[in-house]
Amino acid sequence: MTETIHIGNDALQQLPELLKNRAFSKVAVLVDENTLHHCYPSLKPYLPEHDLIQVQSGEEHKTLQTCEYIWQRMTELHLDRWAVLVNLGGGVIGDMGGFCAAVFKRGIYFVQVPTTLLAQVDASVGGKTGIDFHGLKNHIGVYQEPQAVFINPAFLQTLPQRELKSGYAEIIKHWLIADKEAFLEQRHVGLVAADWDSLIRQSVSIKSRVVEQDPLEGGLRKILNFGHTVGHAVESYLLEQPGRELLHGEAVAVGMLCEAWISRKHELLSPEELDKIETFLVSVYEKVSLSEQDIQQMAQLALQDKKNTRSTINCTLLEGIGNAVYDQPITVQEIVESLRYYTLL
Amino acid sequence: MTETIHIGNDALQQLPELLKNRAFSKVAVLVDENTLHHCYPSLKPYLPEHDLIQVQSGEEHKTLQTCEYIWQRMTELHLDRWAVLVNLGGGVIGDMGGFCAAVFKRGIYFVQVPTTLLAQVDASVGGKTGIDFHGLKNHIGVYQEPQAVFINPAFLQTLPQRELKSGYAEIIKHWLIADKEAFLEQRHVGLVAADWDSLIRQSVSIKSRVVEQDPLEGGLRKILNFGHTVGHAVESYLLEQPGRELLHGEAVAVGMLCEAWISRKHELLSPEELDKIETFLVSVYEKVSLSEQDIQQMAQLALQDKKNTRSTINCTLLEGIGNAVYDQPITVQEIVESLRYYTLL
Repeated sequence: MTETIHIGNDALQQLPELLKNRAFSKVAVLVDENTLHHCYPSLKPYLPEHDLIQVQSGEEHKTLQTCEYIWQRMTELHLDRWAVLVNLGGGVIGDMGGFCAAVFKRGIYFVQVPTTLLAQVDASVGGKTGIDFHGLKNHIGVYQEPQAVFINPAFLQTLPQRELKSGYAEIIKHWLIADKEAFLEQRHVGLVAADWDSLIRQSVSIKSRVVEQDPLEGGLRKILNFGHTVGHAVESYLLEQPGRELLHGEAVAVGMLCEAWISRKHELLSPEELDKIETFLVSVYEKVSLSEQDIQQMAQLALQDKKNTRSTINCTLLEGIGNAVYDQPITVQEIVESLRYYTLL
Repeated sequence: MTETIHIGNDALQQLPELLKNRAFSKVAVLVDENTLHHCYPSLKPYLPEHDLIQVQSGEEHKTLQTCEYIWQRMTELHLDRWAVLVNLGGGVIGDMGGFCAAVFKRGIYFVQVPTTLLAQVDASVGGKTGIDFHGLKNHIGVYQEPQAVFINPAFLQTLPQRELKSGYAEIIKHWLIADKEAFLEQRHVGLVAADWDSLIRQSVSIKSRVVEQDPLEGGLRKILNFGHTVGHAVESYLLEQPGRELLHGEAVAVGMLCEAWISRKHELLSPEELDKIETFLVSVYEKVSLSEQDIQQMAQLALQDKKNTRSTINCTLLEGIGNAVYDQPITVQEIVESLRYYTLL
């Protein structure tokens, strides 16, 4: 497990101590143009002498080509095995920076400083690193824990509303799979009045608890994939359609609706519960228009997703709000039907 | 540690049982044009239904570009997380195939079937995987143990003499760092009369013993790098010089001579011992011509090698034949002088 997760507006103050104690040979900071502008100024005072590695923001740059550039920069900066890479950014920076560090010279240290809500409540916890490959999400990667995670909710103020909503989807997911009470309460609070500091702590604690019990996703950890079987397919498919790209959480919101519908079809979820989920998600997220052709191709993509075993598609479903069951076999046809249900909402 | 290392001309007979017990979802075999022709026919009878992934032989193809091709083929073949990749080949196939498997969908299983002496006594044991990057050897990689290793000495009959000699260098290294008696005895036996089955068992056992005590190379495992600080620099440099490329073991032989000389300079090795090493290595390996410019550039390359900490170069030296000491600081100037010594041999 990650040695330490620091959460709070004073989290970054813990960074100098870590860097000092570990006596890293060099410090490099991975940023994109957004985090360089909005977040790096808040981080800089807590860093010793360091170098910057800058890449372009956006999921479309979470590729092997960008890794090649990062490795080239790491080489030029003479990072050795005792160096540390500080990943300052959202999920793309965290996943890709983590992967680049984990395989550079067979592994150097890295620290996550997630700057989006999505990365703060999801990507920064659990040791999954990776990049996309030929349009397939996180197709290449490793499990590797960072040295530490520093979650500063103040960074959220720099986020566009759309980004905030995207991260909120993972918080909703955590409620749906593990905290019924929070779901029933928070659905009346909504985004605007949310107390981010406390929501992040809650979410990170749910995720940490699950990951600790099953770091390599042999079983239980799969409950965190709720909404992601369909969600990943929706996201991958639309990533290839210029102008239609969704943020990760937006796709997961679609996925959660579809997989809740499939849970209902498998009689794991009551009609009333499906209705509650539907009402809340539809109130937060704008509808995505999908044609019948989109739906067919998304369902095919789900088959190639890495979370499937053999030729069946194993999916995490809800057995009531607050309780998830993993490895539930579903059919491609059910995915098609659930997406049709979505378009009719 | 690797679960099982099978050694012997009947080693491959154990493969069907492993494949059956694990119930892998799919089997893919990574080959190059040489192993497809010379070794695959001996392996095929022991395999269930499988697919082939073929790449070009040679260190110059141990690159990210080849990995991209392998991952594309793995994707096309619908390998999932319960699939296994069988790496049939020398060090390049084993290192690169191991890396490709270790990061595909965050890690699928792989099995090593080393076909060169070098891979049999070195690369297949110890979980190091990796590829070269911008001319730097094994710059990108991970530590990941294979499911099993099958060492069939019969494959050596298909090897050119030059390849055999290259692997022999790692056997000599194992003697020099851990088995004085074997060194003193075997230097009179030489290559032609060698009993490969027994030499491989001995060498694998030395390497396994070391790796078991220190899998991540925090300390003791570094003794296996004897000859490799200078050797890697020599190899990397000549790799970029068309027509002058050396095999790994040939470069390590140069490296062992240089590092034995530095051991002598540090008064860790007696003149008589250096002489014994010199006489034996010179009798086996052809001299490599190096200009003063070559020497200067090789010494600079050694500084960028991943095995160096901070700005000093830590090297493994011999404290007498059969006993190695790691993390011995040496200077770039000493590397230059040792290479000059080599050219005068």
